[in-house]
Amino acid sequence: MSQKMTRRRLLLGGAATAAVAMVKSSFGKMVQTGIPEAAIDPTKQVGPLPGILGTRSPFEHPQRKASLTSSQTPLQDLYGIITPSDLHFERHHAGVPAIDPNTYELTIHGMVDRPTVFTLADLKRFPSVSRICFIECSGNFRKPDKETITPQDICGLTSQSEWTGVMLSTIFREVGVDPKATWFLAEGSDAAVMTRSIPVSKGWDDAMIVYAQNGEAIRPQQGYPARLLLPGWEGNTSIKWLRRIELSDGPFMTREETSKYTEPVKDGKIRQFSFTMDARSIITYPAYPVQLQKGWVEIRGIAWSGRGRITGVEVSTNAGKTWQAARLQEPVMDKAHTYFRYLWQWDGDTTEIMSRATDETGYTQPSLKELIAARGIGTGYHLNPVTAWLVKRGGEVVYRPEKWK
Amino acid sequence: MSQKMTRRRLLLGGAATAAVAMVKSSFGKMVQTGIPEAAIDPTKQVGPLPGILGTRSPFEHPQRKASLTSSQTPLQDLYGIITPSDLHFERHHAGVPAIDPNTYELTIHGMVDRPTVFTLADLKRFPSVSRICFIECSGNFRKPDKETITPQDICGLTSQSEWTGVMLSTIFREVGVDPKATWFLAEGSDAAVMTRSIPVSKGWDDAMIVYAQNGEAIRPQQGYPARLLLPGWEGNTSIKWLRRIELSDGPFMTREETSKYTEPVKDGKIRQFSFTMDARSIITYPAYPVQLQKGWVEIRGIAWSGRGRITGVEVSTNAGKTWQAARLQEPVMDKAHTYFRYLWQWDGDTTEIMSRATDETGYTQPSLKELIAARGIGTGYHLNPVTAWLVKRGGEVVYRPEKWK
Repeated sequence: MSQKMTRRRLLLGGAATAAVAMVKSSFGKMVQTGIPEAAIDPTKQVGPLPGILGTRSPFEHPQRKASLTSSQTPLQDLYGIITPSDLHFERHHAGVPAIDPNTYELTIHGMVDRPTVFTLADLKRFPSVSRICFIECSGNFRKPDKETITPQDICGLTSQSEWTGVMLSTIFREVGVDPKATWFLAEGSDAAVMTRSIPVSKGWDDAMIVYAQNGEAIRPQQGYPARLLLPGWEGNTSIKWLRRIELSDGPFMTREETSKYTEPVKDGKIRQFSFTMDARSIITYPAYPVQLQKGWVEIRGIAWSGRGRITGVEVSTNAGKTWQAARLQEPVMDKAHTYFRYLWQWDGDTTEIMSRATDETGYTQPSLKELIAARGIGTGYHLNPVTAWLVKRGGEVVYRPEKWK
Repeated sequence: MSQKMTRRRLLLGGAATAAVAMVKSSFGKMVQTGIPEAAIDPTKQVGPLPGILGTRSPFEHPQRKASLTSSQTPLQDLYGIITPSDLHFERHHAGVPAIDPNTYELTIHGMVDRPTVFTLADLKRFPSVSRICFIECSGNFRKPDKETITPQDICGLTSQSEWTGVMLSTIFREVGVDPKATWFLAEGSDAAVMTRSIPVSKGWDDAMIVYAQNGEAIRPQQGYPARLLLPGWEGNTSIKWLRRIELSDGPFMTREETSKYTEPVKDGKIRQFSFTMDARSIITYPAYPVQLQKGWVEIRGIAWSGRGRITGVEVSTNAGKTWQAARLQEPVMDKAHTYFRYLWQWDGDTTEIMSRATDETGYTQPSLKELIAARGIGTGYHLNPVTAWLVKRGGEVVYRPEKWK
């Protein structure tokens, strides 16, 4: 290396040093085994040999943010579209049940020709399908009430996996669903015995019973050993730890679709069975708590829609005055988190950056103002407004507070 | 549930009980924390609340099979195309180095206009790209010398992730690569200081420097904090823990491309710089140690090619006499593991099942006999023959022994 080295020049001039924007994690450090903290010169020291399981670097500690009822995916720490399985968000109503896969049973009965009990091995014997899609909680929203919150806080109740299992339509044919059946009940085997009524049409369309996630057996927190998967629909309907499906000619009016998971709209009306998650996007970089530096910045984020493919994401870097098309990472998949990127040269002045998604139905993600005008304030369910980040002159990036009443 | 229940009927008759094919893992059980072993009735007991990291079920224990120099992915335990990051195969020459991302540097020099040292933050500031592709070790082969070996033993040195990073072509433009440069050296910062010479054309084509894997920071075992990624090329060329790239007008003739990673062909000739991994496939289910039952079986496996997309996988269930097209799981991606499935009704007689892949260049995976005829026995590098599983009358499935001399 005889040539003179220069420190990295920034893309088109700009700051003179190599210091650039870095996200500082708000979590404590979690040291894992196997890989020691950095040696002075790693070429001088033989490292740990191959092992049965890999580990994270002791310098990396992505974590969900957990409450008593849910845990949120650290979107600001992630890249691309796969959510690592141990970082997939959780929302459960009575904790994670412990289920022995060898005694697991799924009962299908009601308006069917052949009421049947399936073992896990039975389910795995059917023709299988894999698909990459998101699951999002319908309560995936945080009011813009303060500046110091992250993408994880705002909408960390969405995650994406490659799911593998059997189409529910295959099982419907196997048990002989009565053509007069219009709804089915899906019931979990958690201590809440979580139940939802689902239109049979979704079962014939793209519903699945899945037993694998990101290549391996589904995780207990995501429904081990098998869950319902209703692509694009609010997460609670994809019943985890699925133990029973009952076919019927009407909805069952369970607690989770009467007292919960309905939302007031206007004029005192209540919207019920509002299954589909509308198109949404969020910039995950730069976002709080990033400290930005002047010059070129690749704005990055995810966009998704429960109604089909994302057809476009627009980014504004001037508080919504003008919008530009972001690049979408191929392949763009149906009802799937889609990664978008937009290269921006920040001049160092205060501004607001935001994104809005459009899906294949032509629907475009609304602003919070538009959403409240259309729907009223209502509950925290099914809120998908544009998220704006305020970039301050010093480079501080924060959640833009917005009127909410 | 007033209706009479029947145990699950098999797809088109067949065995009378619910017992079906199950894979028995050859590994010891590894109990993880968090989720207790099964309660008698999980609906009667509140389970663990949401947590910062998820866990595997205590009933699941997929593991790599580790030797002193490598560890193999348990292909027979997996579904779909994503390899969980802690199960990605390893092959390293002096263990896993410990690298502090805050002091990490990548030097690019030689035949360039602007020799430059990049920090990790520098690399992350460039326009980024994500892609799902496989990495396969060129030594990913096990002779059919005995029956009791699994897909993991035969070809567990291939794994697939979603990788995110910067195109090497972007970095090449940044440093101003001399048009007369034809090769570059890539050097790792492990204690072996692993080095390979790579044609510059691959750098301009689809090479990347990646810092993320399956959504999060790349794992130490896969090159943390940044590695080279040469899609479709033998794994050792995708230099991990990348610390230096030197542009030149010829190959560097390092140990790993002269003494190692070359293969004898015919007439005493040696093939060198045989970078690309040819099309290959393997049935991962049913495979040893599955015990099969008569009736319908979904044959499942993966197919991949370093030369582009898989265009077809054929399955034979009669020892190669006839072949049928398997279903390919969409989306089929370039230089990527592609999941295939074929529904087969096993009549209970002894037979052999096998798969062969064809890629977009028209190349079809050869039999072992064809491979030896074309190439001689040579080394264990770049061997991609059809793998046959012998299904015995009793349902035992084993690796079909084959003459090897």
